[in-house]
Amino acid sequence: MFFRSDNCAEAAPEIMEAVVRANESALPSYGGDALSVTLAAEFARLFDRDIAFALVATGTGANALALCVVTPPDGAVLCHENAHIRVSEQGAVEFFTGGAHLIGVPGAHGKIDPHALEKILNAPTSRAPSCLSLTQLTETGEAYSLEEMKVLAAIARGHGLRIHVDGARIANALAGSEILLSQLCTEVHVDVLSFGATKNGALSTDAVILFDDALRNELAVRQKRSGHVFSKQRFLAAQWNAYLEGDFWLRLARRANDAAQTLACALAEIDLLTLKHAVDGNILFVKFPTGALSALNKQDIPFYVWEPDVIRMVTAFNTPDEEIAGALEELKRLCA
Amino acid sequence: MFFRSDNCAEAAPEIMEAVVRANESALPSYGGDALSVTLAAEFARLFDRDIAFALVATGTGANALALCVVTPPDGAVLCHENAHIRVSEQGAVEFFTGGAHLIGVPGAHGKIDPHALEKILNAPTSRAPSCLSLTQLTETGEAYSLEEMKVLAAIARGHGLRIHVDGARIANALAGSEILLSQLCTEVHVDVLSFGATKNGALSTDAVILFDDALRNELAVRQKRSGHVFSKQRFLAAQWNAYLEGDFWLRLARRANDAAQTLACALAEIDLLTLKHAVDGNILFVKFPTGALSALNKQDIPFYVWEPDVIRMVTAFNTPDEEIAGALEELKRLCA
Amino acid sequence: MFFRSDNCAEAAPEIMEAVVRANESALPSYGGDALSVTLAAEFARLFDRDIAFALVATGTGANALALCVVTPPDGAVLCHENAHIRVSEQGAVEFFTGGAHLIGVPGAHGKIDPHALEKILNAPTSRAPSCLSLTQLTETGEAYSLEEMKVLAAIARGHGLRIHVDGARIANALAGSEILLSQLCTEVHVDVLSFGATKNGALSTDAVILFDDALRNELAVRQKRSGHVFSKQRFLAAQWNAYLEGDFWLRLARRANDAAQTLACALAEIDLLTLKHAVDGNILFVKFPTGALSALNKQDIPFYVWEPDVIRMVTAFNTPDEEIAGALEELKRLCA
Amino acid sequence: MFFRSDNCAEAAPEIMEAVVRANESALPSYGGDALSVTLAAEFARLFDRDIAFALVATGTGANALALCVVTPPDGAVLCHENAHIRVSEQGAVEFFTGGAHLIGVPGAHGKIDPHALEKILNAPTSRAPSCLSLTQLTETGEAYSLEEMKVLAAIARGHGLRIHVDGARIANALAGSEILLSQLCTEVHVDVLSFGATKNGALSTDAVILFDDALRNELAVRQKRSGHVFSKQRFLAAQWNAYLEGDFWLRLARRANDAAQTLACALAEIDLLTLKHAVDGNILFVKFPTGALSALNKQDIPFYVWEPDVIRMVTAFNTPDEEIAGALEELKRLCA
Repeated sequence: MFFRSDNCAEAAPEIMEAVVRANESALPSYGGDALSVTLAAEFARLFDRDIAFALVATGTGANALALCVVTPPDGAVLCHENAHIRVSEQGAVEFFTGGAHLIGVPGAHGKIDPHALEKILNAPTSRAPSCLSLTQLTETGEAYSLEEMKVLAAIARGHGLRIHVDGARIANALAGSEILLSQLCTEVHVDVLSFGATKNGALSTDAVILFDDALRNELAVRQKRSGHVFSKQRFLAAQWNAYLEGDFWLRLARRANDAAQTLACALAEIDLLTLKHAVDGNILFVKFPTGALSALNKQDIPFYVWEPDVIRMVTAFNTPDEEIAGALEELKRLCA
Repeated sequence: MFFRSDNCAEAAPEIMEAVVRANESALPSYGGDALSVTLAAEFARLFDRDIAFALVATGTGANALALCVVTPPDGAVLCHENAHIRVSEQGAVEFFTGGAHLIGVPGAHGKIDPHALEKILNAPTSRAPSCLSLTQLTETGEAYSLEEMKVLAAIARGHGLRIHVDGARIANALAGSEILLSQLCTEVHVDVLSFGATKNGALSTDAVILFDDALRNELAVRQKRSGHVFSKQRFLAAQWNAYLEGDFWLRLARRANDAAQTLACALAEIDLLTLKHAVDGNILFVKFPTGALSALNKQDIPFYVWEPDVIRMVTAFNTPDEEIAGALEELKRLCA
Repeated sequence: MFFRSDNCAEAAPEIMEAVVRANESALPSYGGDALSVTLAAEFARLFDRDIAFALVATGTGANALALCVVTPPDGAVLCHENAHIRVSEQGAVEFFTGGAHLIGVPGAHGKIDPHALEKILNAPTSRAPSCLSLTQLTETGEAYSLEEMKVLAAIARGHGLRIHVDGARIANALAGSEILLSQLCTEVHVDVLSFGATKNGALSTDAVILFDDALRNELAVRQKRSGHVFSKQRFLAAQWNAYLEGDFWLRLARRANDAAQTLACALAEIDLLTLKHAVDGNILFVKFPTGALSALNKQDIPFYVWEPDVIRMVTAFNTPDEEIAGALEELKRLCA
Repeated sequence: MFFRSDNCAEAAPEIMEAVVRANESALPSYGGDALSVTLAAEFARLFDRDIAFALVATGTGANALALCVVTPPDGAVLCHENAHIRVSEQGAVEFFTGGAHLIGVPGAHGKIDPHALEKILNAPTSRAPSCLSLTQLTETGEAYSLEEMKVLAAIARGHGLRIHVDGARIANALAGSEILLSQLCTEVHVDVLSFGATKNGALSTDAVILFDDALRNELAVRQKRSGHVFSKQRFLAAQWNAYLEGDFWLRLARRANDAAQTLACALAEIDLLTLKHAVDGNILFVKFPTGALSALNKQDIPFYVWEPDVIRMVTAFNTPDEEIAGALEELKRLCA
């Protein structure tokens, strides 16, 4: 039963095969290989312009690297108060930036409230915020609309801030919409993007996508000194090429989202359970009657208890129907 | 022609297969998977005691993490003046430690000279050195004898220093000797080891091996906040399990070393070429007559020109005989 | 009209004379002078035990130094959400600690609410808080009672935290009470204290008082590398000796507090004005009718407008009665 | 007997009087006082252009602040291998820059050798040097000629480096020459200067003088977050105003230099003693016959034994003739 997180899932076979194929001969290291060269062209096509990129192996690495090139040591990053960079990365941003500050902005359902953002930006402070970080898909599983992101970015840019998107699950946010990634990045004026693949079928790779060419060298230096430069970059590039080819990444995300919808629909039939947030991607927060879960032994609950009476469930590109059915049985059992 | 570095080589098929096998089902993330549990037992067996470890994907990541848990921000790491951490990692140690200082110690053939070490340790200084970092195999391709390492470590410990070993190529150093890795770590009183696999047949993984249990939590925290914790750790653990099984790692290194010996013997027959250092592992530095190389166009030299008139060649576990023969032809051509 | 801040006031003549006297002959540097030796004995007497100390010249320097010896790079400091270290020191704590996080705790009148503290400490988090920082006198001018501080410290210690007191105005907090500084430090189990003198009649000196002898060397190293070690320490020690002699520091604070009380009593007579917080020391926050101040030009208000309709006034050890009378006239004029 | 260092000397009475005068009334804090305004004009006059400045209290603070605004975290500062920033400041530069590297350049008599500088700048390296730091007066007491500084700066600028001057004793270097400070800064293309006063008659103040206006805000931010902003800046500004008035600083330095010359001339008469370096300022290194000093008990030597058989002596602006005579007697006694 693996609804705990999408990072428990396997890699997609197509991506694994690409990694195996990348092992057919000796190749130049540090990005001099043909797979990396191809990827550069793929990214240029995907984003409709030349960009700088850094392939890393973890989401925390991607976020910290992305943010440190647009945030000075005395700067501040505004993000949702429950953003992963703020609550789950153990000070990575503070470390990479040399002491910048993360300021949590409130907002319902994991989305930054524009008025709260304005209020913080207008308050007198000794430390000027330098960057707004938007998480898409948000931590609650809801997606910002393009319009919502544009409003927040416009407020931030009006105060001179840079825009970062933590897109660890951006595929899930885009899979169900008509919006292209390039369109999102352009219209939201994104300066730097953490582009996730690990949670969506890759073995282990996320990328930093940098739109400001003037910072290209800074990114390269920071990547190296943080130990995130791969000598055998071929194995990351191979994953990315397979991931992007024919919009495979969006198809993977759609499968995960579909599984989430199936689960959500079935849950609607269970009287005592409710969904805490809208299901815009592959994450569900299932609310139990007050006290129902706390009455049980923790080891009897085969799910991730996120907070008292709330279970978080995450589907993956390959979540089988039987597993959804099994999960529903378990959930019913827990209600009883 | 890929003698440029061992990181241009493929992953060993046995290791790639292990990675493919690791993809057979969903598994707990962040090291809760069975492969990681097995690996912990494997490491305990290999080192003859319980150790803490961190699986990372790069050698720089391993070195910086290893050193930052034994070096305070105002500390200093003593290493050979040409050590990789000092000349090639773009300040990673300074970054991870929060400002510690790297002090280069001279010594012939990439080995720290004990008298030079003593002299530096006895000199008055405002910044007490906190750690000695020994590179084995050294940057020149020579290996320290166990006795040499013990002498240097004893001097350092006499001044209260911790001992780190940069073992990016420790397999190549040990492959030709009778010395066990556990024996080396015990007799040299190693506190923390960067254990390399990437250059010796893995896809991408090096490990930090920590012998001081009191620092276990510090290592975990630092690994997380530097972005080096893998959610899908299974893919690193799988590589390590295959690498260690039946001393596969030593067999891989022996193959690379044998190729280096074949090359070295053939080179001895070429009048104008000499070897700059003893060939104790898989690295050779080939010295040309003065001016021979600088007379040529760089693009006509299919090798890594390390310094004027010196080429560095690195063999791998799968360097074919034909490639050695081809390289010899090229070298002869360059002399002519 | 200088109610803007106590740091606009002169140095007390007695302290200035001590500085002049300290200039009578050549003396050893870096604390080897007799004045520093005397001060060590004075501090031991004042705190009823041997302590380590660092004399610095600014409150920010004192706070950052104090906190960095008890907070690891990945740690977190809990403080009131409006604490000076959080809102006014431009990331000094983040800088000195190498990336620790400041977590603001709410609470009325500048005092941390015990329930809010408990709640934050009991919430799951990836970054374990390492220190509680209490500001005494608080930013609102109210003083914690000894009992209140003990309750907060007990909660924090129960979670393994260290205790720091930001005592930039601790003299003003103690001057009106029966509590001795040594008693406060003992009963609250203070690990490290920022002991202010600059705002209370010194030229420029605050001290870090460290009660944990095991951290003595760490403090010395951090003081040096942050540029806060004075070669001519005599001039700081002289200020401290005069400040402490015969409880001069408490007498100075009492004078400032008395001036604040005079002002507060007179304000009570002015119909339209109210005090926003209790006046426990030398700070007053004067509340005007809504809109009264915003209707005026800023340059016509000879006071520190802290927030819309609120003026902050700070008295000093030498605030003359005429100035109080003049200020009252001005305040009345602003109401009209 | 206080030839140990010029920081053992008193403050000059004229400067102490200025500090006392600065205490005559309440004044705005944080540089809003008239004394600071006057000083800004004085600096503009002295340097023949508008500059940004930061008044701090220690030489280490000045150097670390100065260097961190022109050196990125992954940068490197080139300085003489015995420079104070490299051997005596306990990693302050590494701390303030967030991990930059100090590279020691050799050279006789404390002066960087131009060929050694070229060699290091031309060597391949992963970390591009970003700044050259020249110490004037050097650690040996010798002064660079203007021409020597220009040659070194031209080499450095040719490689894109910034220029910093550590002028803790720049007064002593300039006092005996015709060269103006403004001329030196212009012709050497100095980007940022540590301008010392503490060792030359001030109570405690050195200044960072920044010639690149684009970095003005960066300097202000760094000064604040490192705890080097003085609320009562009046007491530093007063020292500087007195120091600069009528070139008082050069007159003070000349007196110290004259005392050094008197001492040097007398030493020339003592058969067994020699001077290790030329005496261009107020520092002398007196060489004893081999073994002469080591035969004695340390406590019998009332001087600073710098290295075996070498004593360092530093004169001050107020070193009395009797003290010089007494020192000579002692030196003779030690030889006997």
